[in-house]
Amino acid sequence: MLCHVMTDLIITSAANARLKSLTALRRRRTREETGTTLIEGYDELSLALDAGVLPRTIYYCPELMLEPVVQQDVVRRVAARGVETVQLGRVAFEKVAYREGPDGFLAVVDSVVRSCADLTVGPAPLALLCQGVEKPGNLGAMLRTADAAGVEAVIAADPVTDWGNPNLVRASKGTVFSVPVASDSTEATLAWLRDNGIALVATTPDTDLDYTDVDYTGPVAISVGAEKYGLTGEVLAAADYKVRIPMVGRANSLNVATSAAIVLYEAVRQRRAAGGTEGPGL
Amino acid sequence: MLCHVMTDLIITSAANARLKSLTALRRRRTREETGTTLIEGYDELSLALDAGVLPRTIYYCPELMLEPVVQQDVVRRVAARGVETVQLGRVAFEKVAYREGPDGFLAVVDSVVRSCADLTVGPAPLALLCQGVEKPGNLGAMLRTADAAGVEAVIAADPVTDWGNPNLVRASKGTVFSVPVASDSTEATLAWLRDNGIALVATTPDTDLDYTDVDYTGPVAISVGAEKYGLTGEVLAAADYKVRIPMVGRANSLNVATSAAIVLYEAVRQRRAAGGTEGPGL
Repeated sequence: MLCHVMTDLIITSAANARLKSLTALRRRRTREETGTTLIEGYDELSLALDAGVLPRTIYYCPELMLEPVVQQDVVRRVAARGVETVQLGRVAFEKVAYREGPDGFLAVVDSVVRSCADLTVGPAPLALLCQGVEKPGNLGAMLRTADAAGVEAVIAADPVTDWGNPNLVRASKGTVFSVPVASDSTEATLAWLRDNGIALVATTPDTDLDYTDVDYTGPVAISVGAEKYGLTGEVLAAADYKVRIPMVGRANSLNVATSAAIVLYEAVRQRRAAGGTEGPGL
Repeated sequence: MLCHVMTDLIITSAANARLKSLTALRRRRTREETGTTLIEGYDELSLALDAGVLPRTIYYCPELMLEPVVQQDVVRRVAARGVETVQLGRVAFEKVAYREGPDGFLAVVDSVVRSCADLTVGPAPLALLCQGVEKPGNLGAMLRTADAAGVEAVIAADPVTDWGNPNLVRASKGTVFSVPVASDSTEATLAWLRDNGIALVATTPDTDLDYTDVDYTGPVAISVGAEKYGLTGEVLAAADYKVRIPMVGRANSLNVATSAAIVLYEAVRQRRAAGGTEGPGL
């Protein structure tokens, strides 16, 4: 059943073709073919809107909203900016939502497609290089940390996943739309760092240099590698410093996103101590 | 079909009653009634064995093992110590495994049930208090970090989940069996900290004290609260220091496990700088 109410399209049938195109966006191939991805959740969508993202379409379900009176205002505001808005019945919404306990917001947005060449950074950027990281949840977690730490660029080198992966978007709490991200080959990433005078710090267990014994107050990129195998020889060979995080204990390694957070916040600590500024990484 | 081969029991039928009792352990109630839980995966089981855990039963499937020749040796060694071992066919094993891509190891072990009173710590312990943390994955991630950082006690105050939760065990990579953990009420936990002369550091956004401006070289517990609401007033009121992690950026907060890692490793940094020791937290 389809009926037009003012600017609003209301869909109640879960079998609707448009809804099928939404679930199709869970596949990377469809995301790449359409150049679009999904944002689910009120908080995540709000963050993307604040970051200047203008969705193609917002699907919403007042019945599922936690605070329908306040939250529907977001729908009105984006509609006023020309964004198509589609109201869904509860059953239809739950069918297209990819997380459990959906809160009534789902938006189709343009995918983030950027290479290193598209990045602009300040004179002493703090950057994060993630090489071959496999789990979307880990990349998303690193984006949240990068957002908090004031990281100016997060580069996925030889990425296994795309920035539009719904699990990544969710784990990032929407910060994938506010933190400057890019994807590139490892070779192009290393060249970009060199061309921009950004020192490269590689995290690896195979070094004696403690991560706290490096100066992070200048332009610097902290790099972490794939969950199982770490950074490749290509990055290790190009690194200005190879650092380790000291570990006791029986397990072999920290989670990759945890490692990134520990080193990034050491950089923030040094920068705050050096600059006496209020914000980290500034 | 059931047949005894030497000390080994071989089960090939996925409908077997024993196998049903294994999947029942995914429920907290069954874990509490039986006092047991599951460890899945070769690495996780190895870590638990190294930590002195003697399983009640090990279920294994050579066909699914990554390195059957090497890994079956673990089965032989525990069998020699009197542990019951049960070989499963592939279909049966995949039915009882709770993760995708199982590697042929699943063990039933006694649950970790400890209160604060059961903990023994050294003269200047680094401890972690997790109050009301909801997601098993976050608790598991904090255990990995605690293991690496040499934390002497991880206490779940007013826990929402049990230490035997399979997702927690998995996320912890088995460190739940090597790190000293306990569960208790918030009141009893605070009393235990007082009685043991352990200073309490509370993480909260509502303070002006930077987390790097506190001395962590003495006996100290770092506390983090529930994902959404943080620490309760009870913990905040009892805290010797309330500290914040500086954040810029658009999202509101770091993940709770990330926050814990950042503050724990600041403690490790200070302790290493003060003591000049090789291992963190020692």
